[in-house]
Amino acid sequence: MEKQILKVVKIGGKLIEDENKLREFLKDFCALPFPKILVHGGGTMATKLAEKLGYETKMVDGRRITDANSMKVITMVYGGLINKNIIAKLQAIGTNALGLCGADAGTIISKRREIKEVDFGFVGDIERVNTGFISSTLQQNITPVFSAISYDGRGELLNTNGDSVAAEIAKAMAGIYDVELFYCFEKKGVLTDVENDESVIEDIDEQLYRQLLNRGIISEGMLPKLQNCFEALNNGVSKIFLGDSNLLKKNAIHTKIVK
Amino acid sequence: MEKQILKVVKIGGKLIEDENKLREFLKDFCALPFPKILVHGGGTMATKLAEKLGYETKMVDGRRITDANSMKVITMVYGGLINKNIIAKLQAIGTNALGLCGADAGTIISKRREIKEVDFGFVGDIERVNTGFISSTLQQNITPVFSAISYDGRGELLNTNGDSVAAEIAKAMAGIYDVELFYCFEKKGVLTDVENDESVIEDIDEQLYRQLLNRGIISEGMLPKLQNCFEALNNGVSKIFLGDSNLLKKNAIHTKIVK
Repeated sequence: MEKQILKVVKIGGKLIEDENKLREFLKDFCALPFPKILVHGGGTMATKLAEKLGYETKMVDGRRITDANSMKVITMVYGGLINKNIIAKLQAIGTNALGLCGADAGTIISKRREIKEVDFGFVGDIERVNTGFISSTLQQNITPVFSAISYDGRGELLNTNGDSVAAEIAKAMAGIYDVELFYCFEKKGVLTDVENDESVIEDIDEQLYRQLLNRGIISEGMLPKLQNCFEALNNGVSKIFLGDSNLLKKNAIHTKIVK
Repeated sequence: MEKQILKVVKIGGKLIEDENKLREFLKDFCALPFPKILVHGGGTMATKLAEKLGYETKMVDGRRITDANSMKVITMVYGGLINKNIIAKLQAIGTNALGLCGADAGTIISKRREIKEVDFGFVGDIERVNTGFISSTLQQNITPVFSAISYDGRGELLNTNGDSVAAEIAKAMAGIYDVELFYCFEKKGVLTDVENDESVIEDIDEQLYRQLLNRGIISEGMLPKLQNCFEALNNGVSKIFLGDSNLLKKNAIHTKIVK
């Protein structure tokens, strides 16, 4: 029997902060056929709250350190403010949504990142996604909405990269569904010229990816995203789409990635 | 066939703020036989965050007004910080918990309180508890943990009295289960003398309640709590227990209320 298609959609922080874009995006998400899953972070909303509270944002080599205060802020902003407002908005337009972080029903277990040169603090790398509860939720026609928080199984919540949360959920669900992964971010897709928003590469497969890599065309910011994409494709995800807040609309310009 | 017992437990804000008491309480909650549901508010933690953010707490006739900023704070503190940390802690000690606000899976629909003399802002009075998702969660051996937030079905989250959330869930679930309701607050139970913590009335039924009312023995703070209790008992809840953070322990002093 053919597997049912499951769409896993990640929205980036900048999209969440723009109330009009978010409203429009949620309408598009609502119009997607069931089953589907939404994943969100919170980005600069957390940074802004931390600033207001007088918490210092610590960076090492350009990377953020999640200390105890930062983790509190992330739990408030991602797990509370953003997640619950998205749920209320989706409910109002006809999507029966359920807000989750990785601790809820034990869905996403991660391991606190080991301290090598840098102690990143409360940051987790995902070890396991428990599909049981997610599947039963989907079977009840309920749409899970995950904030980018996981937990270590020993009582600690951990800040976790939103792209990775989406990819790991997609990979874990690929055993049950034909999974398509959508990344909505600031750009219309993978660009040949970072300065030119219209230079979207419409289709990328592994062969073209290697060529682009060799020719140095992929920008540094896109590298981990694309690495994640091929890792997901090599682990059962069938298609990946990259684009901006219009990605879920029909005929929107985007990049499609397949193996 | 006899109905299975379901315990609905409400913990008060002051208990949540005391880390040691909370840890001990969660251990006791974890030891309760399944099925069970936890309900929490957040009380002064929200007030403290609002103060830190420079938001004014507006009061009219001694009652708090939930303006847009207060509602944001409540969503962050109740729905995020407190709820998700309780979930992570319960998971660590063996309770497969799921954090919910009333918008999640459309569980608790309320109506924004009408503006009469006072506009209370984003405050909701519960209209309906949808038992379907709660029941299916319990059937999967998962323990729902509700923050005291509901939603109006039109996109707004609403601040909702935690005691009422617990009572309305208890009443709604009474059709399916033999429901026992537990209120853990600062006192050991209903006291004959507010100044004397040891003056706990161990058993109250409707007859004694009327006598105590007539004799003016019930303190003003306890009146709405007891009114809620009898309303719940008149709507199918079988027993109610009132006590402090030790209420879930065997042999703890408490007040038991029956019809």
